[in-house]
Amino acid sequence: MSGGLDSTVILAIALAKKRECLLISFDYGQRHKIELESAKAIAKYYNVPHKIITIDPAAFGGSSLFGSSLLEKESCCEVPKNRSIDEIKASSTPNTYVPARNTIFLSFALAQAEIFGAVEIYIGPNALDIKYPDCSQAFVDAFQGVIHVATKQAVDGKAPKLVAPLINLNKAEIVALGRSLNAPLDLSFSCYDPTESNQPCLKCDACTLREDGFKASI
Amino acid sequence: MSGGLDSTVILAIALAKKRECLLISFDYGQRHKIELESAKAIAKYYNVPHKIITIDPAAFGGSSLFGSSLLEKESCCEVPKNRSIDEIKASSTPNTYVPARNTIFLSFALAQAEIFGAVEIYIGPNALDIKYPDCSQAFVDAFQGVIHVATKQAVDGKAPKLVAPLINLNKAEIVALGRSLNAPLDLSFSCYDPTESNQPCLKCDACTLREDGFKASI
Repeated sequence: MSGGLDSTVILAIALAKKRECLLISFDYGQRHKIELESAKAIAKYYNVPHKIITIDPAAFGGSSLFGSSLLEKESCCEVPKNRSIDEIKASSTPNTYVPARNTIFLSFALAQAEIFGAVEIYIGPNALDIKYPDCSQAFVDAFQGVIHVATKQAVDGKAPKLVAPLINLNKAEIVALGRSLNAPLDLSFSCYDPTESNQPCLKCDACTLREDGFKASI
Repeated sequence: MSGGLDSTVILAIALAKKRECLLISFDYGQRHKIELESAKAIAKYYNVPHKIITIDPAAFGGSSLFGSSLLEKESCCEVPKNRSIDEIKASSTPNTYVPARNTIFLSFALAQAEIFGAVEIYIGPNALDIKYPDCSQAFVDAFQGVIHVATKQAVDGKAPKLVAPLINLNKAEIVALGRSLNAPLDLSFSCYDPTESNQPCLKCDACTLREDGFKASI
């Protein structure tokens, strides 16, 4: 539960399926830590238990989503700004990619799933995330392979299913789906590089894609 | 690099192969946190860089390797004591199993591998660990599947190889291998439940297996 548009819609989907949910967010030193406030607000809105797991900043590096002090290998980079939708779609893996981030997030989710006996784990890659290796269907399938063998829960025949309900949807479709489920999209926050007063920059890829999604879904 | 016998021998193997190594240890709220002092001593002995990553105790639970305050689901259990080798081998998954621990550890290792451009990731399951699901060959193979697709490093055709050099060896064989490589086995620490003065309890499974390994390898 990043607090963004996609995880908000996924929560609405799971609740519409009458799932009993546990939300997991990560405080991993991200520039846009303000997103966690949105995650809390959405958890409160739906009255769903919410766990925020802190990840040691020593674990990451090499991404524009961190301050430069965390970078170990290279002096990396500003968050890309003012790119058009076509430029975003045509680019290679952006520098907002964080090494192994979703693998780490899913590993923590797997532990929680075993502790609480969960039957499903939800994750939110969408059709526009294809430049991120750990948002691909191949990644989801490979991690499902780990889930099938990694835990006592799996050995006992109760491995949870990894569900990625948005993986083939674009932002307009996600917004439309969220609206149809009455999801509190106004509480979500998507910006990678908020202003000092924690407002969306309206220039980064996340802001551009979000805005385009809302416009296109009208 | 837990600081135990197995990770010490694995480091000796990697160095004998002339690998440039980065050691990763985890401070995850374990009862036997003293093992990290052994990890540091071994890193110093070999003059190898060593990174200790802290894992939020909120991530775990349901194992005897933690104090009861961390347990979320059930009141779990003392570390098993005074079991014979045969009893250990005949038992089901022991309560020292930690949900998804090795998946989490490997995920962090994968991030470090990408940041530093590593060609291999070493992990230390041995032939006596078969009761832990995340020590099986099936688990190693499944996680290799994730490594092959999860990162930009992998997309660029440079996915690291997951190496588990002890997976078919028992403790006596591991001790013998360590000795043949002049590994500083005396610096390693294996106990799950140290005394208040941080001495090995000599009663838990880890102590029993270690002692048996040293005896059998004479």
